[in-house]
Amino acid sequence: MNLKIAVLPGDGIGPEVIAQAKKALYAIGEVYNHEFVFEEALMGAIAIDKTGNPLPEQTLNLCLNTDAVLFGAIGDPKYDNNPNAKVRPEQGLLKLRKALGLFANIRPIKPYRSLIESSPLKREIIEGADFTIFRELTGGAYFGAKTLNEDGTHASDLCEYSEEEITRIAHLAFKSAQSRRKKLTMVDKANVLETSRLWRKVVQKVGESYPDVVLDFLFVDNAAMQLILNPKQFDVILTENLFGDILSDEASVITGSIGLLASASLGEKNALFEPIHGSYPQAKGKNIANPIASILSAGMLLEHFGLSKEANVIYKAVEKAIEFKVVTIDLKSDSKFGTNEVGEFVSNFI
Amino acid sequence: MNLKIAVLPGDGIGPEVIAQAKKALYAIGEVYNHEFVFEEALMGAIAIDKTGNPLPEQTLNLCLNTDAVLFGAIGDPKYDNNPNAKVRPEQGLLKLRKALGLFANIRPIKPYRSLIESSPLKREIIEGADFTIFRELTGGAYFGAKTLNEDGTHASDLCEYSEEEITRIAHLAFKSAQSRRKKLTMVDKANVLETSRLWRKVVQKVGESYPDVVLDFLFVDNAAMQLILNPKQFDVILTENLFGDILSDEASVITGSIGLLASASLGEKNALFEPIHGSYPQAKGKNIANPIASILSAGMLLEHFGLSKEANVIYKAVEKAIEFKVVTIDLKSDSKFGTNEVGEFVSNFI
Ligand SMILES: CC(C)[C@H](C(=O)O)[C@@H](O)C(=O)O
Ligand SMILES: CC(C)[C@H](C(=O)O)[C@@H](O)C(=O)O
Repeated sequence: MNLKIAVLPGDGIGPEVIAQAKKALYAIGEVYNHEFVFEEALMGAIAIDKTGNPLPEQTLNLCLNTDAVLFGAIGDPKYDNNPNAKVRPEQGLLKLRKALGLFANIRPIKPYRSLIESSPLKREIIEGADFTIFRELTGGAYFGAKTLNEDGTHASDLCEYSEEEITRIAHLAFKSAQSRRKKLTMVDKANVLETSRLWRKVVQKVGESYPDVVLDFLFVDNAAMQLILNPKQFDVILTENLFGDILSDEASVITGSIGLLASASLGEKNALFEPIHGSYPQAKGKNIANPIASILSAGMLLEHFGLSKEANVIYKAVEKAIEFKVVTIDLKSDSKFGTNEVGEFVSNFI
Repeated sequence: MNLKIAVLPGDGIGPEVIAQAKKALYAIGEVYNHEFVFEEALMGAIAIDKTGNPLPEQTLNLCLNTDAVLFGAIGDPKYDNNPNAKVRPEQGLLKLRKALGLFANIRPIKPYRSLIESSPLKREIIEGADFTIFRELTGGAYFGAKTLNEDGTHASDLCEYSEEEITRIAHLAFKSAQSRRKKLTMVDKANVLETSRLWRKVVQKVGESYPDVVLDFLFVDNAAMQLILNPKQFDVILTENLFGDILSDEASVITGSIGLLASASLGEKNALFEPIHGSYPQAKGKNIANPIASILSAGMLLEHFGLSKEANVIYKAVEKAIEFKVVTIDLKSDSKFGTNEVGEFVSNFI
């Protein structure tokens, strides 16, 4: 297979982890005779620094015209703590998600057997947990109108959803549940929010086409608790953008490190693959960032193009790295392996 | 002291747990020579059933004219799963919070020594954790304009905040931090939301008057993770309404049961005390609901009126109940004690 892949390393540890994902893909290409052509482009704080724009035209065009996007991480503290900044790195990522129509963000959560002890949660709570979060990615408060009045004393964010936006991701989530344990949990705040009530109504309706899937509902406050009390109860979780952002980061504790979790963002035509972790600026350039999430996102990319065998080879290689404790310090505080060494191990194993 | 207290048992297990809180207050009154006069009123699903209104005029007037409100729980599944219901129980609670101007909801989180093993989190993670969440309670998406278009295919919720709303709760939170370990963590999503950026700006400004308090910021997704990875890092957490709702339910896992957590909601003139748990309809009438959160909310009420000695007597009595394992089944699955027995034990101990 020939794939043209746009690579956006982004900020902080992004470039370091992306380098390892590319290494893994090159190895796969060699062994299984595929051609992956990578083209790098700027996004995020680095793009602001170099062009003034967090998502330069050129980057967007590239992404629109490639088979897939591999993305590293975004964000820089110099913008976070300046509430008056006019341009922010995150705008680049949000614009890209919107422009590519990446409405479904899929985040699988499953602890590794040999890492069970790394979780802050007790073994009996997490052993056997295995669920996937479907997070809506191009709607909600992320994209609604924002206001700040002239004297800067009043602000607002609008959370909006349409039936159409809910329907399309609901179908994906139900289909996924059908291929799994046939349970879908919709998370919302329908006792307070109008948008949540619309979600509940639309998801109930879509659910009629999937009679073999059991649908239940949880309020988001309760869900945030249940994820920790009893994560094994979940199979597929479906939720709106901001709730999905919060719950998936929270759920990462089940696996012991957010450095292990990858996600796929899918649209009608385009697809983007990224770790769920952030740019972790404190770790930048120190060769300590965990590259596994980025490597796994490359695996999800292969799966997306039907290369399941190749994806599994990556997943297996990652498992081996973890089993042999070739991991970064987030997983083993006295580890002598860094970002590069973990990446090398994985690609050598392929 | 003479106190007139409005009692709103509400829905589900509300009436059962409130009964135990009253028992504890009666016992305190007798021993320490205070007069607590209770007046009951309707709110929630029960108020809808009896009057069509989740917050009848009479209830509101009573609450406006008493020293404090003791509230049980709210919510009923028959409304939750009906996205078309015009009147909902929760509207009663939200209206009451707004009408009484209860802008600050304060939720202390601290595990009981003898319950450390009940948490899904490992001992070393939670032992020593001790923090308080300040949740803004009368703003944000809870109270902003809501829309649903005519054909029911598009909905919106507006999240709004003003400098004033942020300033007043920020002062309370900074003061609390001053009397504690002098650390305040503001939780927001300033990389995406305009309201969060306003929060960040205003809280930074208010912080200038509290130079002895260290102020830091966390994005809400990261905060949801940090609460589980390392809850000991927190002293006072300050956040907006919906984030506070989610994070405080999540944080309850640290104590092992949400049935242990109480909260105080404070305004300029009024105060309301309630468990953070919901109406738990499945448990209604079974004498299995944990009354401790409600009893502790009575303790917070006493503290609010300067009766710290009496409040501590309640807290001690609760600790004893827990130590002697006179607890409900959420804390000990084979317990033979019910709601009543736990309440009896606590009030006998006073
Ligand atoms: C960087 C930020 C805008 C982003 C989000 O909130 O969506 C990130 O947290 C994520 O989850 O991908
Ligand atoms: C019942 C509901 C409206 C309420 C809220 O979301 O505020 C509850 O969850 C709480 O935390 O007090």
